[in-house]
This record gives sequence, structure tokens and C-alpha cells, in this order.
Amino acid sequence: MNKELLAVAKGLKPADLVVTNGKIVNVYSGEIYDGGVAVCGDTIAAVGDVSYCIGEGTKIIDAEGKYITPGFLDGHIHPESSSLAMRPFAEGVLLHGTTGIMTDLHEVGVVAGLEGIEACLKEAEGTDLKVYFIVPSHVPFAPNLETSGGKFDPEIIRKALQRQDAVGLSECVGHYVLAEHPELLESIGDTLSMPGKTAQGHLPGIYGPNMAACAAAGITTCHESFCEQDVYERLRNGIHLQLREGSAARNMTLGLLQAVMKSGVDTANVSIVTDDLHTCDLKDRGHLDDALRTAFGQGLSFLKGIQFVTINAARAFQMENKIGSLTPGRRADINITTGAEDFKVLTTIAGGKQVTENGQLIVHYETPKHEPCLLNTVHFVNPITADSFKMKAPEGAKKVKVMCMDTLPYIPFTSRRDVELNVVDGVIQCDTEQDVLYIAQVERHGKNGNIGKAFMGGFHIKGGALASSVGHDNHNIIVMGDSFEDMALAVNRVAELGGGQVIVRDGKVAAEVAYPICGLMSDLSLDELAAQKKALNAVAYEMGTPIQIPFMFLCFICLACIEAYAVTDKGFIDVEKGEIIDPIVGVVE
Amino acid sequence: MNKELLAVAKGLKPADLVVTNGKIVNVYSGEIYDGGVAVCGDTIAAVGDVSYCIGEGTKIIDAEGKYITPGFLDGHIHPESSSLAMRPFAEGVLLHGTTGIMTDLHEVGVVAGLEGIEACLKEAEGTDLKVYFIVPSHVPFAPNLETSGGKFDPEIIRKALQRQDAVGLSECVGHYVLAEHPELLESIGDTLSMPGKTAQGHLPGIYGPNMAACAAAGITTCHESFCEQDVYERLRNGIHLQLREGSAARNMTLGLLQAVMKSGVDTANVSIVTDDLHTCDLKDRGHLDDALRTAFGQGLSFLKGIQFVTINAARAFQMENKIGSLTPGRRADINITTGAEDFKVLTTIAGGKQVTENGQLIVHYETPKHEPCLLNTVHFVNPITADSFKMKAPEGAKKVKVMCMDTLPYIPFTSRRDVELNVVDGVIQCDTEQDVLYIAQVERHGKNGNIGKAFMGGFHIKGGALASSVGHDNHNIIVMGDSFEDMALAVNRVAELGGGQVIVRDGKVAAEVAYPICGLMSDLSLDELAAQKKALNAVAYEMGTPIQIPFMFLCFICLACIEAYAVTDKGFIDVEKGEIIDPIVGVVE
Repeated sequence: MNKELLAVAKGLKPADLVVTNGKIVNVYSGEIYDGGVAVCGDTIAAVGDVSYCIGEGTKIIDAEGKYITPGFLDGHIHPESSSLAMRPFAEGVLLHGTTGIMTDLHEVGVVAGLEGIEACLKEAEGTDLKVYFIVPSHVPFAPNLETSGGKFDPEIIRKALQRQDAVGLSECVGHYVLAEHPELLESIGDTLSMPGKTAQGHLPGIYGPNMAACAAAGITTCHESFCEQDVYERLRNGIHLQLREGSAARNMTLGLLQAVMKSGVDTANVSIVTDDLHTCDLKDRGHLDDALRTAFGQGLSFLKGIQFVTINAARAFQMENKIGSLTPGRRADINITTGAEDFKVLTTIAGGKQVTENGQLIVHYETPKHEPCLLNTVHFVNPITADSFKMKAPEGAKKVKVMCMDTLPYIPFTSRRDVELNVVDGVIQCDTEQDVLYIAQVERHGKNGNIGKAFMGGFHIKGGALASSVGHDNHNIIVMGDSFEDMALAVNRVAELGGGQVIVRDGKVAAEVAYPICGLMSDLSLDELAAQKKALNAVAYEMGTPIQIPFMFLCFICLACIEAYAVTDKGFIDVEKGEIIDPIVGVVE
Repeated sequence: MNKELLAVAKGLKPADLVVTNGKIVNVYSGEIYDGGVAVCGDTIAAVGDVSYCIGEGTKIIDAEGKYITPGFLDGHIHPESSSLAMRPFAEGVLLHGTTGIMTDLHEVGVVAGLEGIEACLKEAEGTDLKVYFIVPSHVPFAPNLETSGGKFDPEIIRKALQRQDAVGLSECVGHYVLAEHPELLESIGDTLSMPGKTAQGHLPGIYGPNMAACAAAGITTCHESFCEQDVYERLRNGIHLQLREGSAARNMTLGLLQAVMKSGVDTANVSIVTDDLHTCDLKDRGHLDDALRTAFGQGLSFLKGIQFVTINAARAFQMENKIGSLTPGRRADINITTGAEDFKVLTTIAGGKQVTENGQLIVHYETPKHEPCLLNTVHFVNPITADSFKMKAPEGAKKVKVMCMDTLPYIPFTSRRDVELNVVDGVIQCDTEQDVLYIAQVERHGKNGNIGKAFMGGFHIKGGALASSVGHDNHNIIVMGDSFEDMALAVNRVAELGGGQVIVRDGKVAAEVAYPICGLMSDLSLDELAAQKKALNAVAYEMGTPIQIPFMFLCFICLACIEAYAVTDKGFIDVEKGEIIDPIVGVVE
């Protein structure tokens, strides 16, 4: 029991910090009223009229009549998608009022296992952002379809669940639950046997009896909702509805929020998450504050919006008693904001410490010495050359019909397009006129030297290659281009960087970003990294792509669980069948 | 993982039971829509259109277009106040749609310690009522002011918290928290260190900084609210508001519900509890169903009312993922009810088993062989005679001024009234003309033979004595009357019964009820016991009392924590001061 906290609450000892003269947004009572918040150490001591808490040594922050809200919580985010190491990531989101995130650090796990995740959690502890760990339920995501560096089995998951910061099991995939994947069911059982820990879901396209089965299995959240039916399907089955508004998928904006508002359903179990947030979006638009701006613009009430990113998010993790509200005894995560019309987070206090002031960061977290497990993670079994990417046609063929996968321009969902391609010296040729590029994934965990190959449309790139050591969910090196030589150069340059993203144009490296941490993340500041990534994107735009975030889309093309096709180090994947297939349909001539 | 449940949800195996053709009251989505519920074993498998779950061997219950709600939960009740042993108590509340209770069995603990409570929990396991154990935070309630049989210290509390059915710590008294009672703070700390367990509060009359301090200490609920200010004070501080509507205090009816409705506050953290429910109320009026009838009559919406006694109650214990809703994976606690206009629970399913049908109980729980610790619990150190109750006046006094405590007629709150009483042979005499009776409490745990004495008003009893081995919160024998002889006879008869309630009128036992279990509870059925208690009350009414439940009021006069006065085995108590005081103010002549 924190007796100092009680003394401050009772008025027997001055508070360390008091926010005064604001309008309290009380997410429990659903009211907004004048008042302030008193803080002792990292904890809220009193809320309301807290003038009695001010004394010698109390730091006073005048809210100047603005709103005082709880700090924001993102209940489902992969920080790795920001390409920022934990410390600059913390700086980046704190600036936008996010004081807590729930994350599985799954991408780090794919490369460096639990050891890597624990190293990143340790790095995050050196910041004022509170990181709650959701243990990955599956690494690799699709064991038979890809090669990963790290591996999670039920034993490792049990060990990870013992961590004090472990709040549940992440991304329990509905289709695996329905297939009664034994290791997943075992891990869900282990999780739910531990009081206070939840099984977080990943339930796209699941309806009726299948949704009942997922709920019956104990899954209580889902961030994979797209339409009005999804809203009903989740809330009626007791599944917390996480409206996703991230860089890779803006489901909230694209109809989901309107569905919630029109339906008139109880919103106690609705929150906003970002899932994947791109560096440039974080820099230019923000985080949950940006999602709220959009939501308020679509007519969501101020109070509900704040509830969506505070108490409701906490409720999805049974953590109401610790975070998500301006309540004595809770972590002192506090924002001062403007109202719904021109929403902006002005000042943020995280764990009792002021971290921003009038929209400016006033803290800086030093780059730590990274644990060795996080570094030097790119290892090829064989040298990579232009020949590595060549796909042979059937003996004697001059023209073949192949399956090309096309991505949509606004979300990396793929579909099949059959095209005819020429064969030169027995090798199938890409055709930029038809928007058909080579795409391949090169195993980089030093395990087997696999290279999977396929054909890609929708990117409209000409005259070079893009390569990236970020490639969901196995983080082998994905490379795409119209020249075998440029592809090899790009992949080798990524390896030289120890991981990163590279564009080769007409035989030369035209732009690059290094991700020395797991091949996923950079130690640059948000501003520096955003500048580099914008330069990278600018080259990709020049090469013809209409996709705003081409590398993030490219990273998702290797995801063996997103409809309808993918390429991994093992080959071209039919996602629905869960099988490796031959992209060659037949010989035309 | 329950694979049979998954198979039923998926439609691969017929459900054990299906409720069809109803209107689902979905407490998550806040909707009411047509559908049914499918059950596998003790768990809900699917909700909505569940016709696909019906197959060979499925028991079908036709809801005939009525409402289907989750089973009701009482988040704060002492079953001992019903005077029924656990099994007839379970029958009594199941008949009214209550499928789960949260209880500390504190009264049993006062008499027989943790051993007694564990024996009662074991007895309850033989029923379909789910009993969640909230570990008593203080036995005795006021260590310096009363003598109890059992005793709870932090070590025993830690042991009790380890039980799988232990969901938190009960009745953390605000004033003790504020006084930083070391053992209580230690136990709260122990509780909150265990994920999923909560510190339940008892916070009457606590406002402002004191309420902030209680919330800061980690207390998250309170059932002691009386007025509009209390509503705001709790909800704004993140304290779950338990509207009490029981036999001893009808706070919900008396303004609290109106305050909630008028305020327009978010009601996700509001539930209804009964705290103490008298045998005759349970028999004649019901349980939470009766509270809901009243609430609907006062204008509460049907959906909110159902939320108040289901999901919200579960939320107060962080148990949303287990109970409180019609959701796959939750305990199959299901009611079929009529609507708000003429509210009645028709049929109840508890843990998947149908226990009532059209308002009739269809189960019976056999009386168990009670553990020895629950029986023969009345032990006097000295014989009890008329002399035991005489209070001596100062030497030579003929008339004295004394403090008499008066109870209110509708709630057992006491206030001070100074009266002048005659002295005969050195003994102060009661005066029924002034409505001043003798009252005393006789220590009955065989520990010290204490007898505390005082004067009582408000009961308006004439011509005899009432005695009871139920006496909150020490359960010594409380006795009140206008004759020392009748008081002695009544107390001795209670002892002969092994505990119970007795009325002596003009030297003879006029009515009695035996409570062989801990001196608190009976093995009679609800119907039998209610008949006996009505006969007992009838005699008390004949003797002049205007109080509807005179014995329940009498039991509360020994409660050393309810304002403003009390009598315990140690003497007359000034509650605010927490001291034993002399009722004699001075000598008049």
C-alpha cells in the first residue's frame, strides 16, 4: 500500500503535480465538468476540486480551460510497423497523447524469438510509455509455409505468460481455432487459466456458428472488422470490437464507425486500434489523436471518442482498475486536449511525468546499447545473384500462362490475374506493359537458403527493384522488380545494411533506409526516419507506383494468412488452401 | 479447451439444451432481438439463431416469445440474513432467477471462522447456485469493541484468497482505510497483488479527499450509497455503484435510482445488490426480480435494469468473461422473463440445468450433514439470570439521566435521546411510557462472559423480551425487553435451541425459531421458515412494535460501525468515537 499516495489524497501532503483549471472528461460517469487532477509519483491521487492538494513543491500545470482526458491506449499495435526502435517510437506516440500500448512485438519475435522481445520490452522500460505485452500465439504464423528466425511453442508461451507485464495471448487466429490447432488451443487454455489474462482475437470473415465457436473458445476481442455485419457479429457474441484505423487498413473510416453509430449499439465494448502505423503517418498525421479527429469529423461524440481510446481499451484487457481513466489509484496518464471541432493533444503526462507541452516533446530517451540478439540478423546460406530469381519455364516453352497476384491500391489484399509471359533462354520474363513484375522472398535467418518466387501486379513499378527485410510474418527479404540484376543488388544491399529497405534503379542504389534492429527498426528519430522514408517513397513514386506506402504493401504480400495469395521463402501461396502452388498455369506456345 | 463445446457451437454435435423462440436481451450490444440460446454442459455454446444446434437428445425449452436474459447476479449479499442454510437459500433465490451471488459469509466467519465458511461453501457446491467467495476483510468487525468466535488476520485472509472461488476482499471499511488500519491495508495489498481479485468497499458517508483516498487505496465498489451526492462521488471516482435494495435498507427505492436516472450518468458501473434479505421478503417479494419490479415501476428501462443485475454486476468483479451475459463460453445461466410492465422470472437455467419452470422450483437440494464446526455454537461462561441485565445507578440516586438510543422505523440507524429514569433498589428502571427498554448483548462464544448493557427506543415493545443469537457483527446474543426475568428466560431459551430467535411474553415463551447452524441459520425450507418467522413477527407486532422486521433491526443494533450508537457484549458504543461509553449522563435526584 502506497501510504504517500493516501496522504496526498487526504490532503496531508502536497501532490507532486497538479493539473488545474480544466474540464475533466470522466470516462466512468460519462460527464464533463470543471476540475483538475492531482498526482503523487506515477499515480493519480485525486480528481475534481484538487486545490487542496497543492502545496510546497507541487508542480502546477494550468489546463487553461481545456479538456483533461486520460492518456490514450492502443489495444492492438505492432510498433515494428513504425520502423522505429522502442525509444524513438515511444517519443513518437507520446507526442500524440498515447501513454500505453498493448503489443505482441510479434515481428521481433519472428526474427529473434522471445529473447528479442524481452530485449525490446527492456528498452521500452527506459521510456515513459507503458508497454503491455500480449504474448504472440504463433511464431511463425504459418509453420508449413514459411521460415522464421524465432519460434514460439506452448512451452515458450507459458514462460512468456508468466511475465508480470504479460496481459494475454495475441492474435488468436479464428481459422486455426476452428481447425482446433492443438498448440493454439493449448496456449489459449494456458492463458485463460491465469486470472486477468485474455485471449485476443484475429477473426476476419468469421460468422455465425464459427464466431460462436471462437467466442466459446474464450476469445474476447477482434481487430479484423470491415462491415456492419461484423459489428453485430462481434458485439452480440461478447467480442470487444476494435475499430482499426491504421496505415495498412483504415477500417474505421471506411464504414465501420458509421455502422456503429447508426446501429445504436452499446459502445462500452468498442475501442480504436491502429495495428500497423507507418512512420510517415505517425509523423504527418499522428496516432490515436488522428483517428479521433477523423471520428469526430464523422460525427462521433467527444465523450464516446475519448472512451474508445481510454477506458474501453482498458476494459478489453480487464485492466480498468489500473489504467484508462482519471481515477485515484490509476496510473497518472493524463492528456490536455482541445475539443472535438479542432482536436489536438496539447500536453501529456505519462506515469506522472510531463512528457509534452503545447504539442512539443520535452523528453528524450537515449539510444540504448542493443542486446546482441537484436543485431546482425541477416544471414544468407548461399550468395544471392541475378540467377537466384530466375523462374524456369517448362522445357521448350516460348510463352507461358502464369498466375499473377494483384494488390488493391488502398489495402494489400491480393487477387488472381492470369497473364501470358514470354520465355527467353528458358526463363520466364516479366512484362511491365502488363504490370507484371518478378517478386521473390529470400530466406535470411541462415536456415535453409530458400527463395520463393512469383509474379506481382498492382505496384506499377518500372526500371529497377525494391527490397525489404521487413516481410510479414516471417521477415525474410522480399524483393520485387523488373530486372534480376537490380533485384540481386537490392537484396545484397539490404544485407550489407544489416536489414533495411532499398530501391535500386537502373543498376544503382537510388534510396535506402537501414533497419539494424532485427532488420525491422531504426534508431533514428521519427523526424529523421520519416525524412528518409519519404525520400524512399519519392523514388518509388517516380518509378510509377500509385500506392502511397509501397513498402508497407510489399511487406504484406508475404503474409500467408491474408487473402488470396502471397509469396514466402517457400514459394507462391494460395492462402485459402494454405498450400504452396505453382504460379505456372500452362504453356501457351 | 472444451472441444465438445466447440463442436456444439460449430453445429457438429447437438446441444444438450436449447432455449428457442425468445427475445434475446443482449447486455453487451444493448439490443433485444429474436433468437435463442444453445447450451453444452454448463456452458453457453451459441446465441441467436441456434436452430442448427438442435439434434437428437437436445432438450428444447420454448420461450414462447418471452425475454431471454442472463441469470441474475447479486454482487453483495449475506445469505445468513435470510436465516436459511445454504441449500434452502439456493432454492429460494434460484426461484427468482438469481444464478450467482458474491458473498463473504462474514456472519458464519464471525461465529466459526474460515473453517465454518469453507463448510458452508462446500454445502453450496451441492446446489446449482454459483457462490463466489469474497474474503471477509475484518472479523471481528471492531476488535476492541466486541467479542467474536472466529477471527480473520492477514495470514488467514491470504490463505482464503488462494481459494479458486475467492474473487476479492469484502467490505473494506472506508474509515479503517482512512485510519490506515495496518492489517486491512496489508490485506488490500495482498488482494490487489493477485490478478483478477478486487477490493470491495463499504464507504458510507465518505466524500471528497476521503473518497479519493479510498479509491487510491484500490477500493472499486461500494454498496453504502444513500443520496444523489453519493452517486456522483462514487462514479466519478471509478467506484462501482451498488444500489442496495434489501430488507434492512431500501436505498435504491428511496431516491438512489431516481438520482441515477436524473443525472444521466453512464450506468456501465451501476448494479443492484440486496446486502441483507429477510426470509419473509424472499418468500413474499422475491430477490433481484423484486428490486427490478420496483425499478421498472420507477421508470428504469428494461435493458438497463437487466444490465444492472447481470453484466454490470459481473464487471464489478472483473468477471465479464465468465458470467453475466448470454455469450458463448460463459456459464449457462439463463432466465426466461416477462417484460418490464409485469416483470416476473418464469424459468431459470443455472449452469446449464433447468431449475425452475413457469415460476415453480423443479429441483430440491437435500439437507447435508453439517460439519461439526457449524453446530452447537452457543456457549456461556456464566449462568444467565435476571440479575445479569441490571444496571446499577450511582450510590444513593433515585432518578438518573441516561442516553437512550432510538432506531428509525424504516432503517436501523440510531440517534441519541436523553431520558430520565427511576432507580429502584439501586437499579435503573426502564420506562415503556417513554419507550425506553433494556437492551443487552451476552457474549456466547464461550470466551469471557461479557454482558454489555444500554437503553433502547423506537421498538415500542411492551410486556416481555426479544432475544436473538443473530447480532451483527459479532453474533453474541442480543436481548431487549421491559423485564429482567423475561430477558433471562429469552436468552436461556435461545441457548437451549442452539441458537435462534425467541420472544418471551409475560414470563412464557410466546414464539421461537431455531437456528442450529452457527446460531444464524435454519435447515427449514423457505416456506416453513417464513411461516415461523411471520408467527414470530406477529407476536412482536402484538407487543406494540411498528417495525416490520423487528428482529432484523434488533440484529443491527449491535453493529459497532453503523451510526450513531450500538450495544455489544463490551458495552454501549459511541460509533463515531469508536469507544465504549457510559449510558448514564448524570444523577437527577
